[in-house]
Amino acid sequence: MSQRLTGPVLVVGTGLLGTSVALACRRAGLETLLADVAADHVRTATGLGAGRPLRDDDAPQVVVVAVPPDHLADAVAAALLTTDAVVTDVGSIKTGPLAAVAAEVSPGELTRYVGSHPMAGSERSGPLAASEALFDGRPWAVTPHEASAPDAVELVEELARVCGGVPLRLTPGEHDRAVARVSHLPQLVAVLMAARLAEAPPEHLALSGQGVRDVTRIAGSDPGLWRQIVGGNAEAVLTMLGELRGELDALMAAVGSGSGEALERMLERGVAGTRAIPGKHGGTPAPTAPLYVSVPDHPGELARLFTDAGESGVNIEDVRIDHDPGRETGLVELVVEEARADLLLTALESRGWVAHR
Amino acid sequence: MSQRLTGPVLVVGTGLLGTSVALACRRAGLETLLADVAADHVRTATGLGAGRPLRDDDAPQVVVVAVPPDHLADAVAAALLTTDAVVTDVGSIKTGPLAAVAAEVSPGELTRYVGSHPMAGSERSGPLAASEALFDGRPWAVTPHEASAPDAVELVEELARVCGGVPLRLTPGEHDRAVARVSHLPQLVAVLMAARLAEAPPEHLALSGQGVRDVTRIAGSDPGLWRQIVGGNAEAVLTMLGELRGELDALMAAVGSGSGEALERMLERGVAGTRAIPGKHGGTPAPTAPLYVSVPDHPGELARLFTDAGESGVNIEDVRIDHDPGRETGLVELVVEEARADLLLTALESRGWVAHR
Repeated sequence: MSQRLTGPVLVVGTGLLGTSVALACRRAGLETLLADVAADHVRTATGLGAGRPLRDDDAPQVVVVAVPPDHLADAVAAALLTTDAVVTDVGSIKTGPLAAVAAEVSPGELTRYVGSHPMAGSERSGPLAASEALFDGRPWAVTPHEASAPDAVELVEELARVCGGVPLRLTPGEHDRAVARVSHLPQLVAVLMAARLAEAPPEHLALSGQGVRDVTRIAGSDPGLWRQIVGGNAEAVLTMLGELRGELDALMAAVGSGSGEALERMLERGVAGTRAIPGKHGGTPAPTAPLYVSVPDHPGELARLFTDAGESGVNIEDVRIDHDPGRETGLVELVVEEARADLLLTALESRGWVAHR
Repeated sequence: MSQRLTGPVLVVGTGLLGTSVALACRRAGLETLLADVAADHVRTATGLGAGRPLRDDDAPQVVVVAVPPDHLADAVAAALLTTDAVVTDVGSIKTGPLAAVAAEVSPGELTRYVGSHPMAGSERSGPLAASEALFDGRPWAVTPHEASAPDAVELVEELARVCGGVPLRLTPGEHDRAVARVSHLPQLVAVLMAARLAEAPPEHLALSGQGVRDVTRIAGSDPGLWRQIVGGNAEAVLTMLGELRGELDALMAAVGSGSGEALERMLERGVAGTRAIPGKHGGTPAPTAPLYVSVPDHPGELARLFTDAGESGVNIEDVRIDHDPGRETGLVELVVEEARADLLLTALESRGWVAHR
């Protein structure tokens, strides 16, 4: 039986994530209390309907610590020492902060701490960027340590569900290795690639297609935040970077030796990797196919396209607008179930769209 | 004054690219002739309306060679030796094939050769995947060598325009260095990253977000084709991989030493790189902002969203559907001009959409 979350929920740190947690809890009818070293953040979050400022005599059931990585452990320890609540945090790394918290509180107090990490964010920050819907449908890692009380773990999982997330239980070490691989390494790989573009002549960049844009997009994220994230997970990140370096050396050897077979084996492992990412709704990904449609680049045309596509009854799995350097038309890529791609193509062409597979 | 393209245009190799060139020339009213070592490809392309099979007494004005990289030089040389036409090709590398062609024909015949490379393709192959619209709005590199006749260069640029592309003139060497950087390196970086996923436990992959999906998407492409492309541009690719390796070593040193400042400088260069990619229509990119909207995952809902968005008058620059492992709702990311994001947010919320920036 799952532990009952009745509130109040105290949110410490009312930036993007903290205010979003508070708004999501309010949506579920829970009482929420707000605290932040920046008084204006609390005022803003209160004004958004995220809750009321914390008072000395409040007794929260759960504390959610949502402060920057460098201050996380201190804030978690303070919450354990000053309340009787179950304490969690929403930080993107788990092992280091846990060790730091354990050094500051007693073993008994530590049983009330269960780390967590919602896989959601935004390129913006601050309470004004917050939303009650930020976590809807997102994975939310819950990372108990060995001495976390089972009731406390269930309560944090309930919090994740109340906020709209999908709880996934991992140990702190597993979590940090997992995010090193599926989040921190891709971030750094995108940065390394994007840095190669920063030095390129403009006439070389004019040949850029959608591929390089996709590979480098996340490299545009906030360097200050990523410095803290990568720095806080240095050991797991270094392991991944070391593996990458070994693969890079093997790739250079394959290209340099002219061994097409060795190169092709490496390219095939890349294909296998893209297929390993779970599909929509957690299931095995159904084979999909892209369909390309020429669309005039002004308001209303996309609506017309999606109306026509919707009437064909074919569900659109993904969409991409191809940026096009020379013309006032866009190329829209519709990704649909492979078996239904021809049906959609015929439907669109019969309505006058210029489309191809 | 640009050279007049009057046809006939002979297309050698009626796969995806060749058949698309033929269809685009037909769209412009030009006579097209088709040849392929695979007779069934010519039959299919003919059936699609791409032209008629080549006869011995035909005298093409232009020959477009569209065969796989490994056979390109021989086919270009054969076209120069057996016709009086201007000869171009649509291969993705230019230096190696040029040298091979130069070894097979006389200096006089070589003046009629002008390489080219349309930046377009598809994850599919073969004539059935072809489209007259494949090149619409795409950059099309035109790569004359030092002895190419000026008239021949202009004719190939005219062909690029007739096919809907945007010609960009580069030397063969510049072209190969450019695509090594903006196409081959991103491809290999995506492959190296995706290979790290192929070995990951499923519970780690469950934390995958949109970022890792974007970084690895192109790694799903055909290994056999990429083996030829990378192998044919080995020198320029090795230079880029070597630069990447130097940066990776510097990154590992920064993470390993705990120097947050060195790490942050590298992250900042990544941001600069993403900004260096030209924006839509070739201009400086206007600042854009993402907007997130919860959308039920069934046909018709996207149409409703784009109809509502279209009525707000705000142009949508890009779209992304966030795959969501636990729920039957999708999260749609609409990328719009930053200054108009709040206007669109208000318009969508007033129509009942759950949206946030």
